[in-house]
Amino acid sequence: MRRFVVIGHRAITSGDFKLEDLCGGAGRLDVLLRSINSAFFLSHDIRRDMEMHLVLQGPPKPPRTIRLVGSELRYLNPDERSTGALIRNALMKKNSEEERSSPGIYISDRSYKDVLSTVPRESQVIYLKEDGKDIREVDLREDVTFVLSDDQDMTAEEEELLMDHGPEKVCLGPYSYHSDHCVLLVNNELDRRGL
Amino acid sequence: MRRFVVIGHRAITSGDFKLEDLCGGAGRLDVLLRSINSAFFLSHDIRRDMEMHLVLQGPPKPPRTIRLVGSELRYLNPDERSTGALIRNALMKKNSEEERSSPGIYISDRSYKDVLSTVPRESQVIYLKEDGKDIREVDLREDVTFVLSDDQDMTAEEEELLMDHGPEKVCLGPYSYHSDHCVLLVNNELDRRGL
Repeated sequence: MRRFVVIGHRAITSGDFKLEDLCGGAGRLDVLLRSINSAFFLSHDIRRDMEMHLVLQGPPKPPRTIRLVGSELRYLNPDERSTGALIRNALMKKNSEEERSSPGIYISDRSYKDVLSTVPRESQVIYLKEDGKDIREVDLREDVTFVLSDDQDMTAEEEELLMDHGPEKVCLGPYSYHSDHCVLLVNNELDRRGL
Repeated sequence: MRRFVVIGHRAITSGDFKLEDLCGGAGRLDVLLRSINSAFFLSHDIRRDMEMHLVLQGPPKPPRTIRLVGSELRYLNPDERSTGALIRNALMKKNSEEERSSPGIYISDRSYKDVLSTVPRESQVIYLKEDGKDIREVDLREDVTFVLSDDQDMTAEEEELLMDHGPEKVCLGPYSYHSDHCVLLVNNELDRRGL
């Protein structure tokens, strides 16, 4: 299983936003939508062995977590707008317990800490960070969880919570890349290893 | 110089489309917009040493070519909608000769064949294709041009035109990836080589 946890620091936590304003009013939700595309799309296929958690921490009611499950996903298209509509549908739900909004898309009030606690103990945990070891030189396991942040760095508190899970710090090249680009580069490396 | 040439087989060739309908009415223009994002964005930076040609071949007046020049680009944001607006502005122009629409964005009536003829003779030409040699094992030059197609394969005629430029066939991994994902994987490989 491949797993991504992405923190959306300002991402809106209600369905009260316009699909024409995914960057501004929705608190850079666009970054998370592109990360969904990078996580799940192959040409003419969806990655089934993939789970993604998007932790939304913006107003009005943080935290909320969207969980996407590749083996169940339907109605996902590559463009930002239609993915934004699926996520907005999820954010319309009011339960705090996890609830399904559409096939493969779940919503809950889980915090970042809660999400980390759902990661199976046997999973390798990797913190994507510019000063980490090059991914091409890192042993990767079949069950692997990558944790990263949106366009803002993790806070000291978020880093500390992650440290409890003994992550390895890994980087993806000589530059700093957008979150969705990071997700894609990881997928390609795992593809090449047959993982 | 890094250079990408991307063919948009059905991409609309007028500015007469809605930003709410980039996938349908605009002939999968969304694929090309995401490729722009992959070509130019680093975290908090734009790739300056980059040129991209998008060859639009859809109705009503094909062909038209959008050329983006990294060293001059302004007003580019990562989201599809705002990039779509910049491209729509370019498509409003009526000249057949190349004309600047906004800083770093040019529009002309150049065909795919015309575009290939503008590639400098000293540039290495690479055809991104699933049955090519793995990019990690290919010598890459500092001036390199990657040619690829949108979500539809190149036609036999398009392949033949490309063959006149002596391309090397190169692949990016064991799977077939979306065009924008291909552009990003190429960028990362070039970054790692310091090219």
